[in-house]
Amino acid sequence: MQASTMTRLIGIDPGLRFTGFGVIDVHNHTMRYVASGVIKVAGEALPERLRSLIDGIHEVIETYHPHESVIEKVFVNVNPQSTLLLGQARGAAISALVLKDLPVHEYTALQLKKAVVGHGKAKKEQVQEMVARLLGLPRAPQADAADALAAAICHAQNRVQLAMLGEKGALVGLGTKGMRIKNGRLVSL
Amino acid sequence: MQASTMTRLIGIDPGLRFTGFGVIDVHNHTMRYVASGVIKVAGEALPERLRSLIDGIHEVIETYHPHESVIEKVFVNVNPQSTLLLGQARGAAISALVLKDLPVHEYTALQLKKAVVGHGKAKKEQVQEMVARLLGLPRAPQADAADALAAAICHAQNRVQLAMLGEKGALVGLGTKGMRIKNGRLVSL
Repeated sequence: MQASTMTRLIGIDPGLRFTGFGVIDVHNHTMRYVASGVIKVAGEALPERLRSLIDGIHEVIETYHPHESVIEKVFVNVNPQSTLLLGQARGAAISALVLKDLPVHEYTALQLKKAVVGHGKAKKEQVQEMVARLLGLPRAPQADAADALAAAICHAQNRVQLAMLGEKGALVGLGTKGMRIKNGRLVSL
Repeated sequence: MQASTMTRLIGIDPGLRFTGFGVIDVHNHTMRYVASGVIKVAGEALPERLRSLIDGIHEVIETYHPHESVIEKVFVNVNPQSTLLLGQARGAAISALVLKDLPVHEYTALQLKKAVVGHGKAKKEQVQEMVARLLGLPRAPQADAADALAAAICHAQNRVQLAMLGEKGALVGLGTKGMRIKNGRLVSL
């Protein structure tokens, strides 16, 4: 038997100019949209901007009280300076999450796209459109908010998969094929 | 007249394995060593490690109550993956400082070396040795602790310079030539 508890997830898409966030509830195999948006990072110097980013994330956490958090694993950019800036933003975002005692789950962009669109080569617009469809939103969320919601959806899917593995006590037939989402429900392939 | 207040500075040399810290007091043109050491970062996954890094910095701040903080500006590494990891560590370290409401001052490695050794091509050992001499320590501090102390010394030097500019009300004859440190005292060239 699977526990029938609700888990609230917050996804974060960190950036030094705009940081996306998305909050969803997961109850058994069902996902429900709670909120999403973009934190506009204020300030000039880096320390100021990181403080603004942390304060923004803390405000969202204090408003929605999520139980777990999800953030995209980043890879090195073609531009090394961008890699450094993104690294610092991501370091501050993870700091904001762990300082509120939230577990932090990390997924690659490939895993996020596969979870939401079904393949790893999806474009930004496809992610936005699929996030809207999966969560039953009237229109596509802004790009950073959509990426944050995609991170939360990816972890929701992974949690259900792990729970099923736990029930069956074996890895056979799962993991490689994975789950798909239909009408906001997670179903195995 | 220059205000005769004591300012306590904390320098931080961030890293995902070891993070150096150094605390000094600056009173008029005199520096006094307070403490230095290395935070050994614990944990496996990145979020855990960043939490450990932040907790370590907060412990040092709560012990020594510095007024201002100093951290080295980093540049992109030859290895992009190292750049990303260092960026995340630096983002978390700056987060730890701003969350304690400390002003954060940033200097490049070149500025730190010039301040401590007198030229920008100094090697690690020279920095360690000069930090020990400038602060009257019985022996050279560990490399990460020495870099953190060098950051604090660099800012101490810069503060005195700025204060003198304020007194004189003109930039003439300062700035380009700068200050040197003699027997723990900052003197203009």
